[in-house]
This record gives sequence, C-alpha cells and structure tokens, in this order.
Amino acid sequence: MRRTIFAAEHDDFRESVRGFLTKEAVPHTEAWEAAGVIDRDFWRKAAAQGYVAFQAPEDLGGAGIDDFRFNAIIDEEAAYTGTAGDGFALVNDIVAPYLLDLTTDEQRERWMPGVTSGDIVPVIAMSEPGTGSDLRAIASKATWKGDHWSLTGSKTFVTSGIQADLVIAAARIEREGVEGMGLFAVEAGAEGFTRGRKLDKIGRKAQDTAELFFDDVTVAPENLIGEQGRGLQLLMKNLPQERLSIAVTAVASAERALEITLEYARSRNAFGKPIGSFQANRFSLAEAATEVAVARVYVDRCIEAAVDGSLTAEEAAGCKYWTTELQFRVIDLGLQLHGGYGYMEEYEIARMWRDARVQRIYGGTTEIMKEIVGRSLGL
Amino acid sequence: MRRTIFAAEHDDFRESVRGFLTKEAVPHTEAWEAAGVIDRDFWRKAAAQGYVAFQAPEDLGGAGIDDFRFNAIIDEEAAYTGTAGDGFALVNDIVAPYLLDLTTDEQRERWMPGVTSGDIVPVIAMSEPGTGSDLRAIASKATWKGDHWSLTGSKTFVTSGIQADLVIAAARIEREGVEGMGLFAVEAGAEGFTRGRKLDKIGRKAQDTAELFFDDVTVAPENLIGEQGRGLQLLMKNLPQERLSIAVTAVASAERALEITLEYARSRNAFGKPIGSFQANRFSLAEAATEVAVARVYVDRCIEAAVDGSLTAEEAAGCKYWTTELQFRVIDLGLQLHGGYGYMEEYEIARMWRDARVQRIYGGTTEIMKEIVGRSLGL
Amino acid sequence: MRRTIFAAEHDDFRESVRGFLTKEAVPHTEAWEAAGVIDRDFWRKAAAQGYVAFQAPEDLGGAGIDDFRFNAIIDEEAAYTGTAGDGFALVNDIVAPYLLDLTTDEQRERWMPGVTSGDIVPVIAMSEPGTGSDLRAIASKATWKGDHWSLTGSKTFVTSGIQADLVIAAARIEREGVEGMGLFAVEAGAEGFTRGRKLDKIGRKAQDTAELFFDDVTVAPENLIGEQGRGLQLLMKNLPQERLSIAVTAVASAERALEITLEYARSRNAFGKPIGSFQANRFSLAEAATEVAVARVYVDRCIEAAVDGSLTAEEAAGCKYWTTELQFRVIDLGLQLHGGYGYMEEYEIARMWRDARVQRIYGGTTEIMKEIVGRSLGL
Amino acid sequence: MRRTIFAAEHDDFRESVRGFLTKEAVPHTEAWEAAGVIDRDFWRKAAAQGYVAFQAPEDLGGAGIDDFRFNAIIDEEAAYTGTAGDGFALVNDIVAPYLLDLTTDEQRERWMPGVTSGDIVPVIAMSEPGTGSDLRAIASKATWKGDHWSLTGSKTFVTSGIQADLVIAAARIEREGVEGMGLFAVEAGAEGFTRGRKLDKIGRKAQDTAELFFDDVTVAPENLIGEQGRGLQLLMKNLPQERLSIAVTAVASAERALEITLEYARSRNAFGKPIGSFQANRFSLAEAATEVAVARVYVDRCIEAAVDGSLTAEEAAGCKYWTTELQFRVIDLGLQLHGGYGYMEEYEIARMWRDARVQRIYGGTTEIMKEIVGRSLGL
Repeated sequence: MRRTIFAAEHDDFRESVRGFLTKEAVPHTEAWEAAGVIDRDFWRKAAAQGYVAFQAPEDLGGAGIDDFRFNAIIDEEAAYTGTAGDGFALVNDIVAPYLLDLTTDEQRERWMPGVTSGDIVPVIAMSEPGTGSDLRAIASKATWKGDHWSLTGSKTFVTSGIQADLVIAAARIEREGVEGMGLFAVEAGAEGFTRGRKLDKIGRKAQDTAELFFDDVTVAPENLIGEQGRGLQLLMKNLPQERLSIAVTAVASAERALEITLEYARSRNAFGKPIGSFQANRFSLAEAATEVAVARVYVDRCIEAAVDGSLTAEEAAGCKYWTTELQFRVIDLGLQLHGGYGYMEEYEIARMWRDARVQRIYGGTTEIMKEIVGRSLGL
Repeated sequence: MRRTIFAAEHDDFRESVRGFLTKEAVPHTEAWEAAGVIDRDFWRKAAAQGYVAFQAPEDLGGAGIDDFRFNAIIDEEAAYTGTAGDGFALVNDIVAPYLLDLTTDEQRERWMPGVTSGDIVPVIAMSEPGTGSDLRAIASKATWKGDHWSLTGSKTFVTSGIQADLVIAAARIEREGVEGMGLFAVEAGAEGFTRGRKLDKIGRKAQDTAELFFDDVTVAPENLIGEQGRGLQLLMKNLPQERLSIAVTAVASAERALEITLEYARSRNAFGKPIGSFQANRFSLAEAATEVAVARVYVDRCIEAAVDGSLTAEEAAGCKYWTTELQFRVIDLGLQLHGGYGYMEEYEIARMWRDARVQRIYGGTTEIMKEIVGRSLGL
Repeated sequence: MRRTIFAAEHDDFRESVRGFLTKEAVPHTEAWEAAGVIDRDFWRKAAAQGYVAFQAPEDLGGAGIDDFRFNAIIDEEAAYTGTAGDGFALVNDIVAPYLLDLTTDEQRERWMPGVTSGDIVPVIAMSEPGTGSDLRAIASKATWKGDHWSLTGSKTFVTSGIQADLVIAAARIEREGVEGMGLFAVEAGAEGFTRGRKLDKIGRKAQDTAELFFDDVTVAPENLIGEQGRGLQLLMKNLPQERLSIAVTAVASAERALEITLEYARSRNAFGKPIGSFQANRFSLAEAATEVAVARVYVDRCIEAAVDGSLTAEEAAGCKYWTTELQFRVIDLGLQLHGGYGYMEEYEIARMWRDARVQRIYGGTTEIMKEIVGRSLGL
Repeated sequence: MRRTIFAAEHDDFRESVRGFLTKEAVPHTEAWEAAGVIDRDFWRKAAAQGYVAFQAPEDLGGAGIDDFRFNAIIDEEAAYTGTAGDGFALVNDIVAPYLLDLTTDEQRERWMPGVTSGDIVPVIAMSEPGTGSDLRAIASKATWKGDHWSLTGSKTFVTSGIQADLVIAAARIEREGVEGMGLFAVEAGAEGFTRGRKLDKIGRKAQDTAELFFDDVTVAPENLIGEQGRGLQLLMKNLPQERLSIAVTAVASAERALEITLEYARSRNAFGKPIGSFQANRFSLAEAATEVAVARVYVDRCIEAAVDGSLTAEEAAGCKYWTTELQFRVIDLGLQLHGGYGYMEEYEIARMWRDARVQRIYGGTTEIMKEIVGRSLGL
C-alpha cells in the first residue's frame, strides 16, 4: 500500500541517503563486523552529508530540520541496505533531543559543532548492572562538592560506549535541598572515567556496546544538562521517540527480510519446484507480508503523530513491542525458509536474525511496553 | 489514535445512525434473536432514514452517495451497539453494487425504488452445497430456451434467504456460443423457486440464512444482470469491497469487545482486587488493545484506498483475514476474562463470541485469503 | 502410539460402556439438547450397568473399584460417542470422593444406595455469584443454632443443579470456636432451598446448570460432611482429580474432533481435490495430530500417577489447562476446515465447538491453573 | 513427573557420564568455542570411557549394548552440562547404525576398532548444495569403472567434516543394470577428496561443519556400505532414530534452559522484587514448565518405542519438530527474561539460543516433518 506521509523533499533525501550508504557503508559492512566497530571516517563522511544531528540550527552545523520523517528515512535506509544504523538512531533519534532541547546556549555552542561534524560521538548512559529497565533504581550518584559534582557509579549496555567522546550519564543527585536525578555530561579523558571491555554480543557485531565506570569523576556545574533533580522526567520525555525509532527500524528490517526471503523462495528449488510454491510456505509468507503491510501503515501513522506532537507514551510503547516482535517473527521465518543456509553467517538473513533479537529488549523490553500500555487502560 | 478519514458530514451521519440503532434496534435485539429473524418493519424504518442503498441516485430513492465511508459507519455502529448489521452489509456493501453498476436503466427503475424503500430485500446467492469457496465449481445452470432462461440448481448459506424478495443467483450458462456464467435475478414467487429451511447456526441467530432451490425456474432475458458469460468476473470484481465490509465489522466488533471487557476487568473483583489488575490479564488486554489500535489504523487506510479506488484484491484479502482472526482472538479473550459468565447467553460477550466465528469463514475463508495474498507475491 | 496403561478388564469395560452409550445415549442426544436436560431414565439405566459411583462398596450398590482408569474410560467414551458425559464426570470423578471418603458410615448408608441406583443425583455447589475461582471468598454462611445449622447464601454454575437431589454446599461457618468452612448436605425439598432458572449457556445444552438459593435452610448436624472448619482443605484435596477428569475429556474430545475432521478433509473436495490434500490444511492437521498424540501420552501418564497417588496439584493444573487449550484449538481448526458447515448446529464439530469453550473456564480457569503451576516453581 | 523408563544400570551410566563431562568438557567448552573445534584428545578420552559406539560388539571395542536409552543419556547429559554433544549424537545415534548394521564382517573389523577407540571419526555426508532435504535429488555420482567406483560430487553441512577420518557419502550409482543410490566409504587422504572451509555458523561454534568435495575419487568395491542401489532406503531407515536423537537433545536442552532461567528469575530483582514474581513472567515460566514436562513424558515414550522397535517414521517426525520448536520457544523466553544480559555471549542462555536455532532445520526441517506426519494421515 502506497505510503502517504512523505513529500518530495523526503523522497529526495531518501535517495541521497540510499546512495551514500550503498557507496560508503555496504562495501565495508563485513569488515566492520569483523573489526567489531564502524570506521570513524565513515561517521565523519555521513556528518559531512548532513545526516548527523541535522536538527541542530545551521550556525551549529545542522540543517535546522525538526521533522522525524528525516530521522525515519535514515533508519529505514540503513535497514534496507543491511548496514548498521545504530549510530544514526543513537545520535539523531535519542541523543540529539537532549543536546538541543535541554542545553544552554553555551553548551550547545561547545558541543554541537563537533557533533554535527562527526568529531564528537555523543552517547547516553542509563542502564546499570543492577537496574535493567527500572530507571528509578539508578545507583550512580553525583555528589555536590561546593563548586563541582563528583560522579561515581557504573553503566552498562552503553551503545557506542567505546567510541564515545561525550557521555550523558544519569545519576542520583546527592545535594542538600535537591531530590531526584541529574544528567551529567562527561567528556572523554576525564579523570576517573574508564571504559570496560567491549561487550561480546550475539549480534550487532559492528556496533560497540560497553560498560563505563565513573570513579569520583569531577563534573563542572556547566556540564549538568537540564534542571538538576529532574533527570528522570527528562529521560522519560524522550522515550516515546526512542521507541518509535526502534519501531521504524523494526518495520524496515522486516520489509527487508521479507524481500530477501521472497527472492529466495522464488528461486530456490526443492523437490523440483520453487520452495515458495509449496502452499505451507506460501501461506507463511502471505502472513508475513500481510502483517508487515499492516505494520508499515501503523508505524507511518505513528511517525505522523510524532511529527505533529501527538504520539503518546503508550502508543509508542505498543508500537515498539508489536513491531519488534513482528520483525523477529518475520526474520525467523526467513531464516527457516533458507534451510541450512539460513544458519550460515555469510547469508544476510542469518546476520539479520542474530542482530534483530535485541530489538525486543533494548529501549524497554516487550514486557515493560505491555505494562505501560496496560496501565494506560486503567488496569 | 485519532481517526483521520472522516469529515464533519460523516460524523453527523454516524451520530444519526447511532441514535437510530439505539432507539430502533437495541431494545428489540433479544426478541429478534429469539424469533430468528429481524422485523421487516425495522428494515423499512432504516430505509426511510436513508440507510439502505443510499448509493442509488435520488430519483430512485437513494442519496446518490458513492462513498464507502458511509457504508463503514453503518457497519461500525451496528457492531458498537451490538445489533445485527448483516442486513446493512448485505444490501449496501454487497448487493447494491450489482444492482447499480451492472444493471440497465430499466432494471434499476424496476428494482431500486423498492430496495431503497425497504420493500424489496435483495440478496445474492453464490455458494452451493458442493462448491464452498470455489466459484468456478458452481453447478447451477441457466439454459437458454430461445426466449427465456431456465434456471435449475440449489444454493446454500444465502444471507436473508428466507426474507429475500429478489435473488441474484449465479449460474453456469448453457447456450450455444456462450461460455461462462451469468447472474440471474429471480423474484419471490417465481414458479419453481422454493426456499429450504432456515439454517440453524451456532450464532447470528437474528439473521436468517437459508438454502434456496431453483427447479426449472423461468427467468426472462431482462432479468439477466450484466453481460452473459461474465458472471464470474462480475462476482470477483466486488469481492474486495465485500471483504473490506467484513473487515470493517471485525475491527468495530473487536473494539466493542475490548470496551466491554475492559469495563468488566476494572469492576469485577477476584482475590480482593479487580481482575484487570492482575498482571497477566493486564498484559493480555494490553496486547488486545495494541492490536486493535493497529487494526483500526490499517482498516481505515483500506477504507481510504477503497474510496479512491486503489484497494487491491490482495490487500482486501489480507485485511479480511487478519482483522477477522484478530476479532475472534479479542472476543475469545473477553469471554475468558468474564469467567463462567462469559459462557452465558445473557452476556453480550458470549453472544459476540458465537456470532464472530463465522467471520473467519464467509466472504472467503482465512485459507482462501492467504492463498490470494500468497499468489500476489509471485509464489 | 499404543496406550499402555490399561489391562484387559479395562478394555472389556470400555467395550461395554461404548455399547451402552451407542445404544442408550447416541440416539437421544439431539432430543436431550432440545429439551435442555438428559432424561432421568437414562441415568438409572447407566447406574444399573454399574457406571455410577462404582467406587462405592458392593453393599452400598457399587463395585468397590477405586481405579481412576475406569472413570477415565467412561469420560472418554462419552467424548468419543459425542454424548454428554458431564453427569458421569460430576458424580464419579467429583462428588463420589466426598460422599465416600469424608462421610460417616451412617451418611454413606443413607445416601449411597440411592446414588449408585441413580435415584439420587448428588451435586456440589461451590461457586457463588461474587466469587468465581476464589474459594476463600465464599460468602454463604452456616450459623450454628445450638442443635442445627442455618444455611444462607446463593450458589451459581451448579452442574445438574436443576436435577439435584442432594446438594453439597460449601459455606463459611459461624460458630463460636470454629474458623473456616464446612460442607453441608442439603436434600431436595428442604425448606428455604430453591432453585433459580436453568442458565442459558452457549453450549452443553443437554446439561443443566443452575443457580441455587439457600434462605435459612435448616441443616441437621448429621448432614455436615467432613470435619467442620476444614471445608476449604477438603475442597482443594479433590481438585487435582476433578482437573484430571476435565483433561481426560479434553484429550478424548480432541481425538474425536481430529477423527471427524480428518474424515471430512479426506472426502470433501474443493478446487477439484480433497481439502485435506492442500498442504496448508495438511500441515494444520499434522500439527493437530502431533499435539493430540503428545497430549494422549501425557494425560495417560497423569492417570497413571493419579492411580498410584502421586499426581500433584500442579501437575493436574498444568495438565488441565494445557489439554483444554489444545482441545479448543483442535476443534476450532476442525470447524474452520468444515467451512460454512462448521457453523451449522447439525454438524457434530459445530456442537463440539460451542460445548468445548467452557472447559478452559470451569474447574479453575486457565489463568488460575498457570498461577498454581507458577507458584510451584518458587516464583 | 518421575521418569519411568530407566533401570539402575542406566542411572549409574548417567552418573558416570555426568562426572566425565563435568571434568573433561565443561572447563574447556569456552576454549573449544573460540578454537572452533573440540579437542581430539577429549574424544579419545570419551571413547576410553566407553561412550563412543558402545553398540559395537566387545571384540571390536564396544560394549555390545543396543539400547537407545544409553544413547539418550549421553545426549541429555551433554545438554544438561552445556557441553557440545553433537559429536556423540553423530557417532552413536546416526553413524554407528550404518557401520554396524549394514557392513560386512571385514568392514566392521577394519573400521570399528578405530571408531570405538576414538581414533577414527566417522561422518555421514548426505546434503548437497543443491538438494537440501530432498534426498532423491542427490547429484553426486559413483560410476563403476570395472573394478572400482569413481566418486564425484560435493556435499555440504557435513557435521565434523573437517575432523572426519571416514566419510560415508551417498551418491547416485551409474552402473549398467543398477538403479538408485549407494553409500560409499571414503577415507581421509583419498586422492581427489578435499575439504572446503569450515562453515561459519551462527552458533554451535565448537562443532565443525564443512563442505566436502569429491573429484574422481577412487572407491574400492569393499568400501561400498550396504547393497548397491538401495542407498536411499538405507538412509531413510535410520532417519527416525536420528530425529529421535535430536528430540532427546531438544527436551534436555529445554529443561536446562528452564532451570537456568528459573534460577535467574528467582534471584534477579527489578522494581524491588524478583523478576519471576511478576505474574506475566510467572505465567510464561509456568507455560514453559508445563510444556517441557509434557515433552519429557512424550520423548520418553518415544525412547521406549525406539527401544522396543515400534517407533514409526511419523512419530519420530512429529516428535522431532514439536520438541525442537518447543526448545526454541523456551530458550527464547529464557533469553528474554535475562534482559540485556541474555544478548551477551558470556551468558549460557545466549549461547544456547544461537545454538538451538539449527535444531528446527537439520535432520529434516519442521516443514518436512509436518509433511511426513500429514501424509501418514492419508491426506
């Protein structure tokens, strides 16, 4: 079904993103997977094209475009071309809103030119070894020392943690008269800030994920992002967009898996005819195609709602879990129809499969999403 | 998520339909179920309101409105008010296109005034005891006798078959130089035309469904609808709208079931707290709410496509099976959460449950729908 | 897979039960459904054959056989012959243990001869309008009046409530020095004991289910069953066998549905070949056949455990929910493959479908069963 | 539920196997995964314990024990200890029957002492790049050259292909007067026999899987296994045991995953309480526990049938697909409940997850299994 949410400028943007990824990412994907990291040079090139933090005003290196459809296009094209899009989603969909909406003029001027040029990789550090999805349980603490903060704690599952130049860390505030949390910007090289090992994940091999440690790290007052004590609310405010971002990737990835699998099912023969012509396979693919079409329409409607500011937390939660569960089902079917080849790393469907699994977990597990939706029903 | 496909005129129409059903149908629903038939008087009242075959031009008693959104509104309101909407769906969504698009001026003038006034109940007779979903296997035959047709055969699962005043029957043509099928209009009282017993269904008790028999029934040439030999194509052309109609009812019915069940889950206590507050129930309801929201957006998109003429056969097929399967899942969950009460006829959820089951069958089974989608994928 | 739990005497018993049901029940099933009740005469004939409360000692009219395999055989044969087996399950599997294990000699002598002859239909009344699955919330109360009890309260969903000659009612005890519940035998005709209407259920039309009301009913001390104050424990002690009984019926019913559907799928043609030869249908039936085979082995293992006294509450709970969910899935598939005919009351699969639905509810809902299993896991 | 198929000798055997694996495999598992191969020394130690091809008669180094329960015990203990059991399953459950039942005395004497001592790793090569599950489509061919065979073709997905000392390859026979296939034993070092690269799989990292190439390899007549022309029948005859072997591993692996996950769910806290205490998780685990218990009973029944020779091809097929699908569901749930940690290679559940996926594919995909079951139903 024809998509209806894009204008000509979006289509042009998509075309240029696709061209860029095809030329600059596709040929290197395998090498990046082997190296366990995406080349920094690629990131700078992407930034030069205006694909990084383009929401920033022009004088800070951005394009001044606050339209989630552009974010979505990059997420989708990364999925369609089978290239790692985590970096874009991280910076454009998740971190940029913090750096642009919560910061002072001085902070923006200090950080954004580097972010938009690709020289500064900004990340956000929320999860802790002991907390999981429960932000209220964050144990890292920032103690006020009269003229600066002392930050102590550890974070885990930090996307791009190894590459990070600027870490926004959530920590419980210890200061007289203040309750709640704060968001603290820690720059690479700060004393007491160390990185753990790159975590060895089942998939997403080109994307680094790491533990970060803060041992009495000095954070200047001007590195506090947003109001002190309101860190939790600030984190929660951006969660719908983060979840929509994951859903956008989920649907595009499911579309890609379906496309690959249909091609395979049409051309691979068994028992003398294309495997897709066996009715049970045809039905499985018909179901996948139908659900992907449904999901496409739904996520587009959610993007529309995000653009006009009406997307609710529960809609984003429902959209996130439903599309990521679907993504996995479709990819799992795709792998199955590939038979033994589906289990081989050299096949795209195999890599998609082990990459996709974490989508049902990060950004809030399926279970947390259902809890959010359920509560919104007055239950 | 806010629906976006309706204009003010649609909202007004919905309000009047709801008012009408609340006053004229809701109080009688139980009696109609017991009687096994909807009062004919109700039908005439609905027609007087302009709810029947409103696509017809004004001079034939209609409103000249060819906009499926109005059809959808009636289907939805019947589902929301828990009243039998089969009659509306049958005439407005399924039969009217035959009577208006395929007929001659003479035929329209002969039949439409009665249809729009509610005096003529028109039905369509496709299925036969031996055919099921396979229209090509229709065995009824119409033999050309030089100046008229002789129609012989039997039909089953004819909605409103007992009440029908005008039957459009599909039959294989036996005439030199002609291949294929024809659609023949048989009027009540025609010699050789008899009705079998009202079929005893699991649900949909107020809706009559019947077998019809044709034994050498004389059909005048001017009662042939559409081109002779092209009956199959004519039948298939309208199937997407018929299936969309079922999907529209499915989603509205799922919404209704969810609403009823949420109310029950909030107010009914077990082990000292509302049953909806148990997490497993809350999750089940969150899943239902999410999928219903997704389905709502999708079916609206399909309505939009139907209105602009772009809805394809495979989209309608996918939409039909996916929404009716969902409808049943949601209602089945609703029944389950009602506990023992869910099994009692006096509860609306119980009646919805046994009524809903046929949605996955008629208008083309889920299996046929998947076949249609699967073939469109080149498999 | 060959069943291994039966000896020759069981096979003989099965044969005679089957013969009896085929002759005495099958021809009347439709009439009983229409009448809404099973003929009392049938019950007496069954009792004369020794099929009712055969666990009772011989001098009380039983056969002194305490072997659940005999119970299971009757439950299975009722399912296989498509005749209502609720009465047997109620008396043999559920009520008999109370009447035999908890009663005094005097009570047994008073009641059992009538029960084993079919003259006394004994029932158990647990559920109340406000309680559902929560036995602790029972509100009916039995107040000690110095030399007798006064029983007041209402019960619902009482199987055979209309036919009942002897009602075992659970009630909260109000007596100085006693806490907890008691089980009270109320005989038909007792003053203050009235029956509500026969409940109008979606299915199980031949089985009466009713509400019962107790308004200051005098219950003699010698009509207390078991120890006063321990009613809850007594109720819970027999629940595993009650649930196993439901599971036994579930698996047999699924086997029956599979058999019917396979026959239909082999003989009914569509598009020129048997519908079962379409691969998607063949796969669905293969899945059903596999799961039914698995369930058969499992329920037989549970019967074995029940016979040797090792069946735990959580095993019975798991077995009950898993087999009844399977039963419904298999029957629902069967209905679907029957197409429009599956929705017609005259088809056995249609009646099985609406009959089966309550299996997932009574005897403890699927949700309660999962709770029981979950807690046994230390969660 | 207590298992009933084992005698004391089996329990003793299990204990010694467990002790052996705990001491000799568990400490090295990680290293073997990193190396991509299991140390040959381990294999010789296992053989010295009598765990390899113990079905062989004592004079050939075996124990003369033909009782699949011993095979099952090794498969299970490998799963329970989280160590790679593919090697055992391959030799004991799959290859040994060929080498013992189809061979001549001379062949047995030539090969078995080396197999039972662990010096010869025998493998079987069926699948080809172009065939998948369709054995009839095997394109490798063995041409009779008057006094020897010339074998040409390529095989893929060969378990232990890199380590193999003796390859049993299936090939189409080209010889006057002979139709059908043959099984040819090719020894390592044979001219024209080369190994492709070790395939890079998503999981099962310690197990080598490879492509093998045969380019005009000379095979002596005495290296033909079984009757020429009957290779297909010989392959199919052992498939039920091969599939049962996979099912045995599947259930044991599911039990292991459940155990790990229950432990985690009891000890890991979120929102202030153990994650297993959230009802939705408790229900998911209750479902998993129930289905695993059911599967345990069923697979034990199948083992019993295998031992008494009555296991049919369709029972083995149903058992294989049903248990491997369950295994994956349970492990997938386990991963999900581990949250982000479930995606990390260092967690056993993560490794189990990517290892388990191929179970639904090899030995015949789920789809092929359903086809086998479906056909046995006369569909």
